[in-house]
Amino acid sequence: MNEFDLIARLTRDLPAHPAVIAGPGDDCALVDLGIPDRWLVLKTDAVVAGIHFTPDSPPHMVGRKALARVLSDFAAAAASPTAALVTLALPSPYDVPWVDSLYAGLRELATQWNVAIVGGEISTCPERTVISIAAVGTVARNATLRRSGAQPGDALFVSGELGGSIAGHHLDFTPRLAEARWLADSFQVHAMIDLSDGLAGDLRHLLHASHVGAELFQDSIPISRAAKLRARHGDGAKTPLLAALTDGEDFELLFTVASRDAVPVLDAWRTRFPDVRLTCIGRIVEPPGLRLLTKRGFRDLPEHGYTHHA
Amino acid sequence: MNEFDLIARLTRDLPAHPAVIAGPGDDCALVDLGIPDRWLVLKTDAVVAGIHFTPDSPPHMVGRKALARVLSDFAAAAASPTAALVTLALPSPYDVPWVDSLYAGLRELATQWNVAIVGGEISTCPERTVISIAAVGTVARNATLRRSGAQPGDALFVSGELGGSIAGHHLDFTPRLAEARWLADSFQVHAMIDLSDGLAGDLRHLLHASHVGAELFQDSIPISRAAKLRARHGDGAKTPLLAALTDGEDFELLFTVASRDAVPVLDAWRTRFPDVRLTCIGRIVEPPGLRLLTKRGFRDLPEHGYTHHA
Repeated sequence: MNEFDLIARLTRDLPAHPAVIAGPGDDCALVDLGIPDRWLVLKTDAVVAGIHFTPDSPPHMVGRKALARVLSDFAAAAASPTAALVTLALPSPYDVPWVDSLYAGLRELATQWNVAIVGGEISTCPERTVISIAAVGTVARNATLRRSGAQPGDALFVSGELGGSIAGHHLDFTPRLAEARWLADSFQVHAMIDLSDGLAGDLRHLLHASHVGAELFQDSIPISRAAKLRARHGDGAKTPLLAALTDGEDFELLFTVASRDAVPVLDAWRTRFPDVRLTCIGRIVEPPGLRLLTKRGFRDLPEHGYTHHA
Repeated sequence: MNEFDLIARLTRDLPAHPAVIAGPGDDCALVDLGIPDRWLVLKTDAVVAGIHFTPDSPPHMVGRKALARVLSDFAAAAASPTAALVTLALPSPYDVPWVDSLYAGLRELATQWNVAIVGGEISTCPERTVISIAAVGTVARNATLRRSGAQPGDALFVSGELGGSIAGHHLDFTPRLAEARWLADSFQVHAMIDLSDGLAGDLRHLLHASHVGAELFQDSIPISRAAKLRARHGDGAKTPLLAALTDGEDFELLFTVASRDAVPVLDAWRTRFPDVRLTCIGRIVEPPGLRLLTKRGFRDLPEHGYTHHA
C-alpha cells in the first residue's frame, strides 16, 4: 500500500463537520470559521532526513524547502498563507548550529511571503530529523482552485520546466504563489494542482478528481536542463521525457482553462511573468486515462510503471 | 541545550507580523484573521515512538493521545478547537492495521470534541513512527487565558491528581476543555497553563511569563494513586511527592485567581465537576522563584535538579 492509498483509506470515513468546506483529498483543506468573505485554508507537510534531503543539503535550504512545499500547496489553491507552525523531531544532543541555519532559511522564505512563524515544537527522534510544517491562510470564498474542475476540451498548462529536480531544484524552487493568485484573479481556471509527485502522477490526481482523461503532447512537455544533463551523463536510467513525466518535486503549477482562454492565458502570462515558462502540454478529454500523443500516434500511459517504478 | 532553550533561541528574533496577537511562548498562538469577535488559535505537537509511547501502547490510545495533547493546550488557552491536520512519518512497509487503529482512536476523540480532521499527510521514517498534529480553533477576543497574568496574592489551583502518568494516564487522560471554558466564562482567571512537563517545570514557565514567584503547600499537592503505588513497589526512585512535582504528562490545568475568588472557584467547581478534583496548592508571591512550604518551613525548589533530573 502506498502513501496515497493509505491516506485515502484513513480519511475516507471521516465524520462530516458543518465548518468544513473541503477536507482531505485536495491540496489544501478549507474551513468556514466566519471570516467575512473568506475561507480558512490549512495544509500540513513533512520532510524527512535521508528522503527529502541529505546530510549534504545546506540546512538553510532544508528549512526553506520544508516551508516552500507547504506554500506550493497554497499556490495550487490560489490561497494566501498567513501563519505557520513548525514541529521538529531531532536527534539528541541537538546540533544547534544546524538547527539555527535551518530556521534561518525557513524564516527568510516566511518573511518573503509575509508568513508569520507562530509556533515551534521540538521533540527528540534519535535516528533522523523530521520537520513538519502546518500553515494556515485564507482565500476568497468560492475563489479557491481545486483539482476537481477540469472539463473535456480544456487546455492543460504547466509552468516551468520538469524533471531532474534532485539535481538542486527540489531545494531552491520558488512556490508559484504570485502566479497562482494572478491566474485566479485574471482567468477562469477550471482546475489546478501543484506538481510534487511528478507530472504523470499529479495529473492523474487531477483527472481522477475531475472524472475526465487527458492527452499529453509529448513534444510539448517542457524538460528541464537538469533532466537532459542527467540523462546524458548517465546519472540515471531515465530518458529526459521519462524524468519530466515522473520525477517528483518540480513544484510547478498544472492547471486547465477552457480552450478559448488558452491563447489569452499564454499571452498575458508571458507579459506578466516573462522569466517563468508556461506551456500548453495537452488537453482534457472525456474518456478516463492518460494518453501520450507522439509522432507515431497515441500511447497509453499505464497507471503503474510510470508513477511507482520511476 | 534542552528543548525549551532551543525553542526560545529559534523563535526569539521572529519578525513581527500585524496579524499575530501571540506567537511562540504560550500554550497556543493567536492570530487575528478578521473573524468577528474572535481570534484564530493555533497549536502543533508531536509524539514519537519510544519516547511518548511504546510498542506495547495500544495504537488507538496512541492516536487518541496525539490529539489529546494538542487539545490540552487549547484548554490551557480556554479556546475551542475546530479542525486538525495529521502528519504521520511511518516505517515502510506501512503497518496498516496499526495505523487504522491509530486513526480510529484519533477520530474517536476528534468526534467527541467536534474537531474535524481536515488533512492528512504520510511520509516514510524508517526507524520509528512520528505523529505530528496541528490544530486550529477560535477564542473570543481578549477572553483567552495566557501564562503571563499571575499576580502576587493569587491563589494557585491545579485540577486532578499528579504524578505517575507513565502507568497509564498519559494515554487515557481527558483534555480539560470543558473545565477550562467554564472557568474562563465564570471567573476572572489570571493565568493558566496545562501540565505537560510536570508541576514544578510548568509552574516555573507560568511564573517566568508572569514575572512572579510562588509558594507551594507541600501537603496540599494532590498525588495520584499511580505515583504512590509506583513509589511503594519501587518502580522508580521517586517519592510520591517528587513524582507529583516532576513527572510529565499529567495534562491537568494549573491556574491562578485573585485570593477573594479562591473559595467561590472551589465551591462552584465541586458542583459543576464533582468527579474532577480541584486543589488550591499555593499562592503567587512577588519574589521570583519557587518555594515549597513544608512542616519544617520553606524549602527552595532549585530550577534544575527537579525539572531535568526527574
